[in-house]
Amino acid sequence: MSLLVVGSIALDSVKTPRGEVTEVLGGSAVYFAYAASFFAPVRVVGVVGDDFPEHHLDELRRHGVDTAGVRRSPGKTFRWKGSYEGSMNEARTLAVELNVLGGFDGGLPPSFLDSDYVFLANGPPAMQHRVLDQLPAARLKVADTMNHWIRDTRDDLARLFRRVDGVVMNDQEVRVYTGEENLPRAGRKLIEEGLRFVVVKKGEHGSLLVTKDEFFVLPAYPTTEVIDPTGAGDSFAGGLMGYLAHAGDFRLPDLKRGLLAGTVVASINVEGFSLDRLRAITRDDIDARSDAFRKMLRF
Amino acid sequence: MSLLVVGSIALDSVKTPRGEVTEVLGGSAVYFAYAASFFAPVRVVGVVGDDFPEHHLDELRRHGVDTAGVRRSPGKTFRWKGSYEGSMNEARTLAVELNVLGGFDGGLPPSFLDSDYVFLANGPPAMQHRVLDQLPAARLKVADTMNHWIRDTRDDLARLFRRVDGVVMNDQEVRVYTGEENLPRAGRKLIEEGLRFVVVKKGEHGSLLVTKDEFFVLPAYPTTEVIDPTGAGDSFAGGLMGYLAHAGDFRLPDLKRGLLAGTVVASINVEGFSLDRLRAITRDDIDARSDAFRKMLRF
Repeated sequence: MSLLVVGSIALDSVKTPRGEVTEVLGGSAVYFAYAASFFAPVRVVGVVGDDFPEHHLDELRRHGVDTAGVRRSPGKTFRWKGSYEGSMNEARTLAVELNVLGGFDGGLPPSFLDSDYVFLANGPPAMQHRVLDQLPAARLKVADTMNHWIRDTRDDLARLFRRVDGVVMNDQEVRVYTGEENLPRAGRKLIEEGLRFVVVKKGEHGSLLVTKDEFFVLPAYPTTEVIDPTGAGDSFAGGLMGYLAHAGDFRLPDLKRGLLAGTVVASINVEGFSLDRLRAITRDDIDARSDAFRKMLRF
Repeated sequence: MSLLVVGSIALDSVKTPRGEVTEVLGGSAVYFAYAASFFAPVRVVGVVGDDFPEHHLDELRRHGVDTAGVRRSPGKTFRWKGSYEGSMNEARTLAVELNVLGGFDGGLPPSFLDSDYVFLANGPPAMQHRVLDQLPAARLKVADTMNHWIRDTRDDLARLFRRVDGVVMNDQEVRVYTGEENLPRAGRKLIEEGLRFVVVKKGEHGSLLVTKDEFFVLPAYPTTEVIDPTGAGDSFAGGLMGYLAHAGDFRLPDLKRGLLAGTVVASINVEGFSLDRLRAITRDDIDARSDAFRKMLRF
């Protein structure tokens, strides 16, 4: 299945207890696409400024990512600056420069209009709606969002949730959106709004899958080398959606194995800054850790 | 194997978003013993005041708990008053009355001196040491503790950890004791101090087992009915140790299945105040939820 992601392409400056980097490749669409492309070809839609190094796009293309949907606009690339402390469960945003991302409208190139699987990374719901408008025949539509949109554009978001099959959101977002603290109950509330599945990302605590009839919980892989959690959630979603696109279906067993794929890719991603660790591995490394994790979980 | 627990016996007053109770049966030794006695006979050591209702002890005895180690001292029973808010992950202690627990010395009756498996619930390390002094032939010794003792009696605690086989501690305690935020690394640090295994309780996020060579992670059972988390950690430890006492061994496969037993009993316990839910179930109910959980975790 063809897999399309719409999201941000960024230059990130990040400080963690394990080190510091400046203006490295980042953004939700980048982490998602790189992670997903271990499993299936990926089409990426986003915007960069005229300052964005072309070699970053070359690198994505070499990894099986079609960048025909990346528009280069006059101006500067989106920049994010953040830091993590302690258990690194939460990013502290120090600075955001939207730059060209502020004018991003989610327009797709003609060659992307037949995409089967679609992931709408965090972004303005109005833009996410416009992407779906262009993809009436997509078979699987999944969205992420963040507190900002839940607070300011809740109606647009509720309408979006009625148009997609699933969401991948973090625990705090699910709690804020539903007003329900118990995560399984919160997930069920979202299902009642018409979603087929809800994936709750809990950072170092793993993830929870909720469908109409089932719950599935998966801990995070217990890595001892957390260097930088930036992109953990997006690489998790990329592993999940990449696996589903590869499997060509999204029944419960597919979703479970997709969660495993996402969990493993994210656990490798956080072992370095930017895409450093993902750049250094192959699909075999992912499979090896997946096997070790499955064995670890067996009784 | 005979299983002994030393800990508190309390009258708890608890308020949660789901309700409120006053002076109900509680305490670490009580939750542990009731949970463990679904799997194996349990010996309980603790102290109550002359105000403690005898029917509480009758109830424990009817559930396979030997109360020969419960001393009745002149004075009032230990009381704890606390509340939970939001996701109920952390108790807010509103009042503690040590009462007779302040004079508790951990003395064992002669009939308990041949105990094989021992669990030292949270308490002063000096008292925990005294219990071990009386049990030179115990085959498996496991301890819990809390931040208070880590801060004030660290040397006693470090010495205790060199005398026991394993610890069952919550995530924050493990982080504070080791000074390490990453839980798998923190667990390894404890192993390097000579422990055979470390179980980290993460509340609604499940648990982590660390041994010299292995990690094992288990999410919490995704119950939608969290009424009162009081006793979750102690009933988890009770299920774990009860399972091990029943199995008669504590190799990695036993520990994994023990974690499952603890997880399931704790998930039932939090569905009511005090022991309300555990009182209403049988071993069959635990096995049914264990089977459902194993199935949920299967790919």
